[in-house]
Amino acid sequence: MVAPGDDLARLLLDALAAQDLVLEDGDVLVVAQKIVSKAEGRLVRLADVTPTPEAVVLGEETDKDPRLVQLILDESTEVVRKKPGVLIVRHTLGIVGAHAGIDQSNIEHGDGECALLLPEDPDGSAARLHAELQRRTGKHVGVIVSDSANRPWRLGTVGMAIGAAGVAPLDDHRGGTDLFGRELKVTLINRADSLATAATLVMGETTERIPAALVKGLAQDAASDGAASIPRPLEEDLFR
Amino acid sequence: MVAPGDDLARLLLDALAAQDLVLEDGDVLVVAQKIVSKAEGRLVRLADVTPTPEAVVLGEETDKDPRLVQLILDESTEVVRKKPGVLIVRHTLGIVGAHAGIDQSNIEHGDGECALLLPEDPDGSAARLHAELQRRTGKHVGVIVSDSANRPWRLGTVGMAIGAAGVAPLDDHRGGTDLFGRELKVTLINRADSLATAATLVMGETTERIPAALVKGLAQDAASDGAASIPRPLEEDLFR
Repeated sequence: MVAPGDDLARLLLDALAAQDLVLEDGDVLVVAQKIVSKAEGRLVRLADVTPTPEAVVLGEETDKDPRLVQLILDESTEVVRKKPGVLIVRHTLGIVGAHAGIDQSNIEHGDGECALLLPEDPDGSAARLHAELQRRTGKHVGVIVSDSANRPWRLGTVGMAIGAAGVAPLDDHRGGTDLFGRELKVTLINRADSLATAATLVMGETTERIPAALVKGLAQDAASDGAASIPRPLEEDLFR
Repeated sequence: MVAPGDDLARLLLDALAAQDLVLEDGDVLVVAQKIVSKAEGRLVRLADVTPTPEAVVLGEETDKDPRLVQLILDESTEVVRKKPGVLIVRHTLGIVGAHAGIDQSNIEHGDGECALLLPEDPDGSAARLHAELQRRTGKHVGVIVSDSANRPWRLGTVGMAIGAAGVAPLDDHRGGTDLFGRELKVTLINRADSLATAATLVMGETTERIPAALVKGLAQDAASDGAASIPRPLEEDLFR
């Protein structure tokens, strides 16, 4: 259980050492958004939230607590879809999904009902952790901050990367050719989301208490932009 | 390079043996749709396709070959979105995506320009391969037929499962409780898509010539429905 102000790099390095795992150059550490948000103090007591009239109406339309709806609106730029039980928004980070990534599960309730917001700057969170791991171990370890994602046409969640550092989120083969010399028009592979999703297979989502996973053996890439490069540009969105 | 009528189970077992890999109960073999489709003879010569007037108009609207558009229409039930360069449809299998999964890369062109359709029944393809592997090795090995997927709001492809056998596509925690006893409302994990995505990290998509990946160490589950259980019911689709 991670608390505000906790030193995540230290917690992760201790956990790795306890399992005799050694960080090597090129490894990628996938860290659940939940523990990053907790360490960064992003827990909000619903009792401290005063919903606006807009949040009250939207809460009625979606069968949701108007205080939670207020937090969702504060974190987002646009309501994409709504119906009873469903509220899909565009987060200020550009991520489209349910509830602006705000989470109410696996959160301590001793202090009243709470909600956990995404980190303010997940790429920054990843970059700080990446730098801190490098400082303490001398190794270049990619860091991905992962969250679970629902999708429009497929049941069940998969992982997605909301923050990344030291690992290229998008593996760009566009402009290359396939085995037969045909131009590859759309081969842009989302490695960061793929790593987050692969990690979810071992991290689980509920009671496994595994908030991080270490990926070894990945082909090296040149680190580049953070996960902020992943959301499609607004003008390309056909589903607003 | 796989040809129509090839014995995929034999090819895969030979490839595993050549790498000293041994199948064990509970392993999952992820197999690229491309080689399944090729083995099943799903390659179509565009010269053999006569586009209808509808396909000609849609081809002009989307800047696509009307013969390819005809194949896409034949494979789908609904055009979901279209614009120049983009044609998103609902495949008869229920899968929403670009081009009904029809592929023109890494396909031999000696016989004129071709397109490769999805298997007619990918769950059936997976089930046959699952049964054949069990018959020849005595091992219970899950099989997933994977394809790459584009998504509305995120750049870059990830993997998805279009067929599955011997492995549960959806890992259902709904109705359970989290670490603090709060009811988990939406925790349904898509293991099949996650496995397909994890496999894509080692299979690549272009010139790697790796059309299958073996997953070991996955927690056991009870096998259930095929990947046909993954598409959301039409009445839940907020993005038609």
